[in-house]
Amino acid sequence: MSSLNNIRPPSGTRDFLPDEFRARERVLDTAKAVFERSGFLPMDTPAFERIETLMGKYGEEGEGLIFKILGRGRKESEGIVDLALRYDLTVPLARYVARYRGRLPKVFKRYQIGPVWRAERPAKGRFREFYQADIDIVGSPSISADAEAVITIGNVLSELDLPKIVIKLNSRKALDGLLEVCDVPTGARKDVLVSLDKLDKVGIRGVEEDLLGRGLSGKVVIRVLELIEQDLPSLRKSLGSTKVGSAGLAEVDELMELVSPALSGGRLKFSPLLARGLDYYTGPIFEVFDSGSSNAIASGGRYDGLIGELAGTAPTPATGGSLGVERLVQLLESTPLERTGARVFITVWDASFRGDAFGIASELRAAGIATDVYLGEDNKNLSAQLKTASRAGTEYCIIFGPDEKAKKEVSVKELSTGEQTKMPRTSLVGAMRALINSR
Amino acid sequence: MSSLNNIRPPSGTRDFLPDEFRARERVLDTAKAVFERSGFLPMDTPAFERIETLMGKYGEEGEGLIFKILGRGRKESEGIVDLALRYDLTVPLARYVARYRGRLPKVFKRYQIGPVWRAERPAKGRFREFYQADIDIVGSPSISADAEAVITIGNVLSELDLPKIVIKLNSRKALDGLLEVCDVPTGARKDVLVSLDKLDKVGIRGVEEDLLGRGLSGKVVIRVLELIEQDLPSLRKSLGSTKVGSAGLAEVDELMELVSPALSGGRLKFSPLLARGLDYYTGPIFEVFDSGSSNAIASGGRYDGLIGELAGTAPTPATGGSLGVERLVQLLESTPLERTGARVFITVWDASFRGDAFGIASELRAAGIATDVYLGEDNKNLSAQLKTASRAGTEYCIIFGPDEKAKKEVSVKELSTGEQTKMPRTSLVGAMRALINSR
Repeated sequence: MSSLNNIRPPSGTRDFLPDEFRARERVLDTAKAVFERSGFLPMDTPAFERIETLMGKYGEEGEGLIFKILGRGRKESEGIVDLALRYDLTVPLARYVARYRGRLPKVFKRYQIGPVWRAERPAKGRFREFYQADIDIVGSPSISADAEAVITIGNVLSELDLPKIVIKLNSRKALDGLLEVCDVPTGARKDVLVSLDKLDKVGIRGVEEDLLGRGLSGKVVIRVLELIEQDLPSLRKSLGSTKVGSAGLAEVDELMELVSPALSGGRLKFSPLLARGLDYYTGPIFEVFDSGSSNAIASGGRYDGLIGELAGTAPTPATGGSLGVERLVQLLESTPLERTGARVFITVWDASFRGDAFGIASELRAAGIATDVYLGEDNKNLSAQLKTASRAGTEYCIIFGPDEKAKKEVSVKELSTGEQTKMPRTSLVGAMRALINSR
Repeated sequence: MSSLNNIRPPSGTRDFLPDEFRARERVLDTAKAVFERSGFLPMDTPAFERIETLMGKYGEEGEGLIFKILGRGRKESEGIVDLALRYDLTVPLARYVARYRGRLPKVFKRYQIGPVWRAERPAKGRFREFYQADIDIVGSPSISADAEAVITIGNVLSELDLPKIVIKLNSRKALDGLLEVCDVPTGARKDVLVSLDKLDKVGIRGVEEDLLGRGLSGKVVIRVLELIEQDLPSLRKSLGSTKVGSAGLAEVDELMELVSPALSGGRLKFSPLLARGLDYYTGPIFEVFDSGSSNAIASGGRYDGLIGELAGTAPTPATGGSLGVERLVQLLESTPLERTGARVFITVWDASFRGDAFGIASELRAAGIATDVYLGEDNKNLSAQLKTASRAGTEYCIIFGPDEKAKKEVSVKELSTGEQTKMPRTSLVGAMRALINSR
């Protein structure tokens, strides 16, 4: 067997040490619990899809980031690829809905949590393998479904002790109204939206330059700039002058009304310039920020065309939201993890006491107490074993040697204080349960 | 965007409908809980590794099953692959241990649960993407570590309500003793082990043919056949006549003594012909069977050479076990899943009552009650909504219309009986909690 020359994980990917793993699990488990409590159903799809399933779905730039897999039994030199790692959880959802339509509820509320892969240039906070946690409601045209998505995302964040979030809401229809008011030619609409999306980063002068650079007429650019400098009441009035803009405003207002009461502490904000990068949105859209940060920690929106288009089926209304798992893990970095791992460590007096040690461990484990047994070299002295226990972060050590055995007792040492107490062997489990629950 | 021509998942992989997902989760969550309770630490590695990391590790046949990934930004025609999907969780563990050695406990008890990928020819029960759930104890040469691995695997199975398992135990050393007793030439040892491994399937005549077909001398074949027909006491005596065989017997006896008391209902059986396919085992080995089935549902053993060899570091003692996740899911198929999904469904009287419906849902969800809200087309009549709730398997429907609103009441309909009761709006959460807990 050849050995490993390079022991780092592949570029752009990560190994997870136990505590790093738990930090990610905290976010994913919380999301899962809230999704379940809100009636979303779990599902899964494979890590890879047929390559045809993914091609033509993400635009040229996205397509270049798809990891392609060599055909089974093919030589590298043949260069035949037939599978590809999933790039997101949305295209697999479209395939899934097309396939199982008849077996799913008419309004299908699903969640899916899992890794996706993109061959990005690695950078700080940007990975080639990262988790997505998505909820989607497929089959409902109602604003209730949009509200449910936003509320559920908000609930996850408040459960993660991030109550001071700001949810920026807008509607694709409101944006369309805005473009109409400014007389933006149809062909340039996408350009203007991309430009507006940068406002927070580049400022109004940046948007002006960007728009002019995209070849828009000076007249249109002036209109756009005038509009985005308006205060909210005037802007509402301008949007209200178009049919699609009015529909957008109504949508946003209704959503605010439904979502507000369900958010504990979170703040909702109509953000008429919020555009979101993806051009498949058709209705309400949202982005969530933690107070003081300009990186979204969650986002989503309605995309009524996408699923039918991807799956080649009839139009299927859909709305959803996605958590920025990696950003959330980072954001919670400084919040201590709940105590996990073994609470109790059973020392092994000598090799002849191994059976006793495992017996004690079994009893404690059966009582639901996470317990470790000394597994190192046989016949190691007690102080070395206690050091192992302490390094592992366990709180109590159990000592059961010839003395204890003769007297049918057991010694319990609290590692933080060094205090050691003896108790009857038979009362150990009850005593440990009481000690641990009292913490 | 191009649409999907083929909506099935790629050959050899599976989509999971909500209940299928839950059936798998039941196995994985149980394993996780038992692993944690036994002091194993979670960890993770990427889905893919550098291709050099995996090459030369699995033999020719295994290597042919590795999914290779085309280099980033490479054209198919260049045929350059630089990554590959992980084939198991053991080679990544070797890399991980080599990399983080200094940051891990001296005796590192880890668990890892996740998918692996093999380009097998798809067949019933054989998949190209499947889950592994592994525990490993790295860094301990003690038989205590072997016992801990077997006990932990046994505990998962008993927690899964499979208490009537049979754990077959053997030691690679006992097998070496057997080969020595039979004068098997060193070069033919692996052949004989592979042959013995088939005994259950092909019977003693099958083994005879197989051995002769492998070119072993008639004299050796006769000795092997004689030995495997011996009863256990005579076989023990034969093995005891060699040094390595005695060591193997001692190992097995000690393991039986440590493991037996910890198994509730499970049975341990010394199986001197159990060989296990993989030739990297160096000490105790085991396979677990559910009563009445000849397919192993878990297995493992000690592999003191492998990690050091893979990682190119000093020899590192290691022992572990692996659950046959897919077989366990199958085996438990007929065991009903615990009630999951929403218990309560909030109907929406008409669009003007949406806010009230979401308000009620928020209260129930905050109380930990999984709750769904009607999200379908607006202003749908009540009976259609009740049908949706019933199809989704919810137990209670909440009705809050003009009547209830005026009287500050709420109606609760139990779907199984059709019984409907009114209660004050303010006592809803308490009442629902009591109803659901009483089930």
